[in-house]
Amino acid sequence: MFKSPAVLLQAKSIAIVGASETGAGGWPKKIYQNLEQAGFPAKVYLVNPGRQELWGKEVYPDLRSIPEPIDLALCLIPAAAIPDALREGVECGLKAGLIFASRFGEEGTAEGAARAQAVKILCTQTGLRVMGPNCMGAISTRQALRIYPSPRVRDLANGPVGVVFQSGGTFMFWLQQAAVRGLGFSYAISSGNELDLDLSDYIKFLVDDPDTKVIVCLVEGIRRPHAFAEAARQALVLGKPIVLVKVGRSERGKAAAKSHTGALAGDDRIFDAVCHKFGVLRAHSLDDMIEITLALMAARLPKGPAVAMSGFSGGAKGLLLDYAAEAGLQIAAISSGTATQLRDLIDPGVPAENPLDIGAGVASQPQKFTDICKILVDDPNVDLIAIQASLPATEDEIFDPSPYAKLVQSTTKPVLAYGRMSQNMTKQAIALQKAAGIPFLQGLPETTRVIRHLINYAKATVSSLPQHEYQAANASSLQAGEIEKTLANYGIPAPSQMFANDLNTVSAAAEQIGFPVALKIVSPQASHKTEVGGVQLNLTSSQSVAAAAAQMQVRLKAIDPDALVEGFLIQEMVKGLEMIVGVRSDPQYGPYLVVGLGGIYVEALNDTAVCMLPMTRERADEMLASLKCSPILGEYRGEAARDREALIDAMLALSKLFLDHQTWLSEIEINPITVLTNGKGVRAIDIRAVLI
Amino acid sequence: MFKSPAVLLQAKSIAIVGASETGAGGWPKKIYQNLEQAGFPAKVYLVNPGRQELWGKEVYPDLRSIPEPIDLALCLIPAAAIPDALREGVECGLKAGLIFASRFGEEGTAEGAARAQAVKILCTQTGLRVMGPNCMGAISTRQALRIYPSPRVRDLANGPVGVVFQSGGTFMFWLQQAAVRGLGFSYAISSGNELDLDLSDYIKFLVDDPDTKVIVCLVEGIRRPHAFAEAARQALVLGKPIVLVKVGRSERGKAAAKSHTGALAGDDRIFDAVCHKFGVLRAHSLDDMIEITLALMAARLPKGPAVAMSGFSGGAKGLLLDYAAEAGLQIAAISSGTATQLRDLIDPGVPAENPLDIGAGVASQPQKFTDICKILVDDPNVDLIAIQASLPATEDEIFDPSPYAKLVQSTTKPVLAYGRMSQNMTKQAIALQKAAGIPFLQGLPETTRVIRHLINYAKATVSSLPQHEYQAANASSLQAGEIEKTLANYGIPAPSQMFANDLNTVSAAAEQIGFPVALKIVSPQASHKTEVGGVQLNLTSSQSVAAAAAQMQVRLKAIDPDALVEGFLIQEMVKGLEMIVGVRSDPQYGPYLVVGLGGIYVEALNDTAVCMLPMTRERADEMLASLKCSPILGEYRGEAARDREALIDAMLALSKLFLDHQTWLSEIEINPITVLTNGKGVRAIDIRAVLI
Repeated sequence: MFKSPAVLLQAKSIAIVGASETGAGGWPKKIYQNLEQAGFPAKVYLVNPGRQELWGKEVYPDLRSIPEPIDLALCLIPAAAIPDALREGVECGLKAGLIFASRFGEEGTAEGAARAQAVKILCTQTGLRVMGPNCMGAISTRQALRIYPSPRVRDLANGPVGVVFQSGGTFMFWLQQAAVRGLGFSYAISSGNELDLDLSDYIKFLVDDPDTKVIVCLVEGIRRPHAFAEAARQALVLGKPIVLVKVGRSERGKAAAKSHTGALAGDDRIFDAVCHKFGVLRAHSLDDMIEITLALMAARLPKGPAVAMSGFSGGAKGLLLDYAAEAGLQIAAISSGTATQLRDLIDPGVPAENPLDIGAGVASQPQKFTDICKILVDDPNVDLIAIQASLPATEDEIFDPSPYAKLVQSTTKPVLAYGRMSQNMTKQAIALQKAAGIPFLQGLPETTRVIRHLINYAKATVSSLPQHEYQAANASSLQAGEIEKTLANYGIPAPSQMFANDLNTVSAAAEQIGFPVALKIVSPQASHKTEVGGVQLNLTSSQSVAAAAAQMQVRLKAIDPDALVEGFLIQEMVKGLEMIVGVRSDPQYGPYLVVGLGGIYVEALNDTAVCMLPMTRERADEMLASLKCSPILGEYRGEAARDREALIDAMLALSKLFLDHQTWLSEIEINPITVLTNGKGVRAIDIRAVLI
Repeated sequence: MFKSPAVLLQAKSIAIVGASETGAGGWPKKIYQNLEQAGFPAKVYLVNPGRQELWGKEVYPDLRSIPEPIDLALCLIPAAAIPDALREGVECGLKAGLIFASRFGEEGTAEGAARAQAVKILCTQTGLRVMGPNCMGAISTRQALRIYPSPRVRDLANGPVGVVFQSGGTFMFWLQQAAVRGLGFSYAISSGNELDLDLSDYIKFLVDDPDTKVIVCLVEGIRRPHAFAEAARQALVLGKPIVLVKVGRSERGKAAAKSHTGALAGDDRIFDAVCHKFGVLRAHSLDDMIEITLALMAARLPKGPAVAMSGFSGGAKGLLLDYAAEAGLQIAAISSGTATQLRDLIDPGVPAENPLDIGAGVASQPQKFTDICKILVDDPNVDLIAIQASLPATEDEIFDPSPYAKLVQSTTKPVLAYGRMSQNMTKQAIALQKAAGIPFLQGLPETTRVIRHLINYAKATVSSLPQHEYQAANASSLQAGEIEKTLANYGIPAPSQMFANDLNTVSAAAEQIGFPVALKIVSPQASHKTEVGGVQLNLTSSQSVAAAAAQMQVRLKAIDPDALVEGFLIQEMVKGLEMIVGVRSDPQYGPYLVVGLGGIYVEALNDTAVCMLPMTRERADEMLASLKCSPILGEYRGEAARDREALIDAMLALSKLFLDHQTWLSEIEINPITVLTNGKGVRAIDIRAVLI
């Protein structure tokens, strides 16, 4: 399932094919200088048939002429010449190629597609590994391998962050900003259009790399969804968080991503559900990816969702609470013991509560401040604490890290520091952050989003680890017509109903079911029941049932005098909350379930939640809680609470049914599935099943 | 309506009451040094009964002893001593006081409340103006007045941004970060708990100040909503945008704001509607306030909503489109002529489209890049352009501003530059921004939000300027019982209906209305019709109407044998989309209208839009378009389009009715108001009117 980029990222010998002073936009020279300056320990060979010497080194006419086998060829020649150059290289032991050029099919020409095909075949037949095309290089700090056409790459420090970006320009910009905030990197890869090695291969490599602790990606499209899911699953098992930004939340964004890298963006909500399943943290922006990664550096995860916050700005406290509400954070309810302890330390006028606002005076007394924070974080109801902290703003401000370091060392819970806004990061600020051993996050909304991600990730790691594939137990070979019976067997009942052959027996049937009832005409000519008025709801007496049935028959005959009336269906009239539950298979990621507010407005209101299958009871419960219509499931406007547990049972049953019968079922949608009052269960009113 | 802080912000003589080396947290010394260092041109007197000399200056025992009248006393003494000190000052000509201390009632003690009362009376009786209490000072750059207890205040430059923050600590932090981005300030005010002068006074002062072009506020609560609205109205008339962050989107945020500054946060959605009415730009975060203010510095507004974007990063383009969709931006459709011109300048493989991604190569060729952007901005379909631009990241990088400056000068449309992320701002970067004459925004989501705000503000300035108060034309003295008739007179019909005195006449009445009909029992004992089953819908025949009426009467008598049945109401059965329209008065900001998806789930789904009254047809249209259920008003799932225009008519009619009868009407809510198919109008099904 995975190919390894190791031979490329840990190359011991490199050839710059297309080495020249000014050619290829100056990239060969810049890359050569970066390798030299970084002290790349092994041999760098230059290849160019038109030169004999360059930068004081011998230049070879081709790969064949180099005296030793080469691990990695950096192809800085035009696209058209690359397949031949690689083939020649492979013949004399080349193991990997890095292709900077574009025009390998993504531009839509036949020549480009042929080039791509030629390289792919070469890879398959010879085991050659290729990075790119249309990429901008890769960095391996430990191996002093800094292949990127800009001097900015030289200052990137070693560290535990592994990076894969599909966009080469944004790649460098992000690395630079992340470095400014104090992050260091194991490997950083610009993967480009991924002709051979792809995102999933690189993630798998970083998952296996002992020096990488957090994996950060910018994703435009995922070429092999199953491989991505498997790499993400392994990352979760090993406790290495994947943080990513993915293009394609909007239709136009999706189209742009496709045309840029040629990778399909897929259904964005399914991707969210996949991220949820495997604990992948999907960040809102490139900036957020830095904040989240900083927070993960501390490698502490909250044991639960209860957050404490402590600061010295009343204005920030109110804003923080607003953003916390947006991010769905749970503010810890501190114990009375904690409140008592706090009162001894804080000013008399300050309420001993969470979040705590101690007043501006304490901003310049970090030891006093962290002593107070210590009381808060030690409260057994608190799982994580975020404390306000100032960073030095100028070169001559130096703050003492020790109060922060002491606080962090005195607890096993995560401790985050936050500032109110984004600000310039000085060397002194980075030194403070490092010595304090605490991430200094920038911005209030950002801080609450980071906490949300930490809590989500912690939860994913302790959930029963997801299976990659579901093993269907006893897949039967049902017929499609039996779907309602099958649903009933799985515990999802339809309303009670009886069939009456003719007008004479409808009343008796209705009385047996009990009023009110619904009446439907059954006729091959009445497939669209609403159009011929062939459904009547809420009939409350024998007389009205009989009259309605007679009228239906008259209406149908008026439209089609030859229509055959097979009889009438009399159904229990179900009153409750109309929801929708559906299961189907995403072409990229496989089976999933959707639940939401049902009825005819389901599409417009789009109040739904999605989960990849199989699912747990806890997750089903979470999904319902995430719906806007969730309050209606409880007691609402004087109506009794609905049978929420029965709805959860139905969700679990439907997903089991679907997984058991995937071989012939493409999709089942129940809309509405009506949720009755507590204890009365649910009824599948309208079932649509699509066969494969 | 407004008191002026001019005497305070333009003080010619200042007394530091409580001058001491280390007292009051060192604030007197820091403030004195700031005034000295800034070259405050007039006299600064020191007051402290315990000293005779300090910092080489004479110290006076009290305000009375100072040889000349004082404009402004900075009160750096305990709260308890302040009322007396101010009273003494007023007696010898003091015009204004600035109170740093808290404990003026917001802490909940009787002493505090008494102190506040004493100062308020002094203000009212003598015309003394007071800033604070619980504030941290104010800055007037032009007057070299820098009253703030931190040396950071000294570097703030003069410029067109006027600032009012209710939170003193966040105030300084924001100013500092804004300064780092190149912004300069006319006045900056930390308003504190606003015992005398309040937010609305300061805004009004800045609106009138010729040096102020943009007004920026951090708001926790608004003490005088009407004054705020009037100041905002005047700002709009003069074309001075107000940009603000307001605490209180969440319930907990609201509570925190109230306890911090003692100001009520009010209903957040109403505040949003007030902002919309007066073109006040409500920013999402403190960081966003900087981006928006930077964009407003250019003083150019888009003539319409069509946005062009041009950059050199494919990854950023996809993300930008995602964020643009989130911000509801309209991407300009460029003309074929523009596309043809672009093709001559861009690489063959690059699509000539908007947004334009020219490829990484052009990042280092700003002149070529801006030439291409020039073609895009000149397209008649484009109202605003955002162009990607790099800022120097280090001290030794210097970029040429002239291509940007030329581009800006060659057009009258707004030109914004954006970078992909937040980054450190160097002196070189500020110089580039200044020379280019173009705001360099940081971050992709931030950039799209800024554009949204610019478009909203431009629209507010060209809308018919709102009246502050509506003049009711012919307020009648209707009776409450006539509300349905009144609605009908204003053009909002109820369903056809007839009253039947008894069981004998219900069938005939139903036949006259036409089937299907709804039947309701009328009885003083059946006020909750649903509880006694006193409403039956969708009755399709005379027989079923007669039977249902008889059953209702039996059920009612079973519950209450003495119940009086006055008769039965037979109504036209209305089938359509159930909406809600309501009008009422917010206690802070006055009359408003709510429209949204109706029915029983209205609260849970909360798919509503709010507008302050009076309203325009255009605004009513916008409100409907903003609803999630908006698609259901058009053709939806095979159902014919609804009578959207009739719904807009009803919204306008209801608001007129409400404004005309405000004297006795507190609230009208129509839920549901059913919207029939196109041309068939609406029906007010259930009307609830509350009298004052």
